Amino acid sequence: MRVLVTGSAGFLGGHICRTLLEDGMDVTGFDLQTTGRTDIREDVGDLLDLDGLTNAASDHDVICHIGAIGDVYLAAEQPQLAASVNVTGTTHIAIAAERVGARVVYASTWEVYGDPHYEPVDETHPTNPDHPYNITKLAGERMLLAADKLHGVPAVALRLGTAYGLGMRTNSVFEIFIRKAIKGEPLTIQGDGAQGRQFTHASDIGRAFALAARSEARGVALNIVSPEMVTIKQLAEAVVERFPTEVSFGEPRPGDVAPSYVSGARASEVLGWKPGVDFETGMRELLEAPRDLG
Amino acid sequence: MRVLVTGSAGFLGGHICRTLLEDGMDVTGFDLQTTGRTDIREDVGDLLDLDGLTNAASDHDVICHIGAIGDVYLAAEQPQLAASVNVTGTTHIAIAAERVGARVVYASTWEVYGDPHYEPVDETHPTNPDHPYNITKLAGERMLLAADKLHGVPAVALRLGTAYGLGMRTNSVFEIFIRKAIKGEPLTIQGDGAQGRQFTHASDIGRAFALAARSEARGVALNIVSPEMVTIKQLAEAVVERFPTEVSFGEPRPGDVAPSYVSGARASEVLGWKPGVDFETGMRELLEAPRDLG
Repeated sequence: MRVLVTGSAGFLGGHICRTLLEDGMDVTGFDLQTTGRTDIREDVGDLLDLDGLTNAASDHDVICHIGAIGDVYLAAEQPQLAASVNVTGTTHIAIAAERVGARVVYASTWEVYGDPHYEPVDETHPTNPDHPYNITKLAGERMLLAADKLHGVPAVALRLGTAYGLGMRTNSVFEIFIRKAIKGEPLTIQGDGAQGRQFTHASDIGRAFALAARSEARGVALNIVSPEMVTIKQLAEAVVERFPTEVSFGEPRPGDVAPSYVSGARASEVLGWKPGVDFETGMRELLEAPRDLG
Repeated sequence: MRVLVTGSAGFLGGHICRTLLEDGMDVTGFDLQTTGRTDIREDVGDLLDLDGLTNAASDHDVICHIGAIGDVYLAAEQPQLAASVNVTGTTHIAIAAERVGARVVYASTWEVYGDPHYEPVDETHPTNPDHPYNITKLAGERMLLAADKLHGVPAVALRLGTAYGLGMRTNSVFEIFIRKAIKGEPLTIQGDGAQGRQFTHASDIGRAFALAARSEARGVALNIVSPEMVTIKQLAEAVVERFPTEVSFGEPRPGDVAPSYVSGARASEVLGWKPGVDFETGMRELLEAPRDLG
């Protein structure tokens, strides 16, 4: 099975490439830049170049589409860029997939739901995103599912929990906390720290992509979310237990998505997916990893 | 009050310019082309050119944003174009409005709701669009309301009923039926004709834009929909009563949006909007209009 992975030079795309390889798939990465890794082919290109994308996708059975403006701060600062890459770029994926006869597995996000009407939030819960990042991710998801319905492009959207693992962006809360704590600097929790997240390990997300790539499921969105709810305060505590430093509380960040408890039950039924890495294990891996603190 | 109207060369944009003028506003049109009309200034430009758009918007108090890929068939054929113009273009409107300090009134659509969970459908009903046209219109709406929340750009989205009036596209069901009937050709209803639409007259939509431009309302979406539900069969009957010809029934069109009864009650409360043209009156105007039948 030949799989094209967009966003392969990014944190999550890189993990997904690795998991697909472990699953025995033949992987091509597609990104604006190469990483130099030698275990996959790397194709340099832009999601906004439909013809280049179509060429890259030809002879592939599946496109795992992770490439996006995935940095919520960048999406807020340059919403027009998020709109182009996340909506038009994803529409290009649908068209390229139709042209080459590929199946699409798409990285959507649990944040599409907005404030919960009921919990746990399942896939039939209304969607109400309110930030350029999650608005454009949902629009991309809908464009793919419309291509499934209107043009017969088999597509599955995976609504991912907040991903964590080795190689995260340095502006992620994990890396900010760990790097500060190693240097003995105080950690500042924005808000009261009671807001929780179902942090989902990148390798578990990778397995969900592998399962969805091989499955017959289509025209559906599935939550891929670890059942553990971890608060930001608990995250800070795990960091300072390993690297003792002070913790203080600051102003809440405007526009932060309120937590809601999201159910991964349907993904378990449809794909047989279950998370394998609990937070304690994933956190230990992160805390012990070597880091260049610049 | 200086108002920039995007999409001013189109059917609905043209009507809205006229209504705003009647309301005493100072109107600039913004479109890819001029129409030659002399009652407004016409600025030629592209929604995808952010700097050109910002220049056009400077010194305007309000942007009425109607410019879009509004033809559902074109949006289905070229979804990437719908994504660019309707999502990135609308995000450019939000940025331009922030730069020049303008308020935005946006043409959204009743089609954002998808299949009804309850009726009448009010603005708190879940949204579930499934076609490149309504998916991208909803994403544009959300990007504007996010700019209201995150960047303080006052924005109102008007979820419009199916607009009709003089000057509609020749591929609209109104113009197809009327033109065929005038030539004595048979009319074909796709499906059983029982599907209804709350056809809303373009002049009533124009008044909603005028009211929203002058109002203090912001951060909200409002249904601007006539209460009359008219079936396609009734529409055909109105046409053949004036221009007798045969009516037959064909295959339903795939992807057609199922009807749902949409309430305009909130727009009445918030804006004081009420439709003024009933279907019989609007239809008579259309049937008696001179037409170049090519």
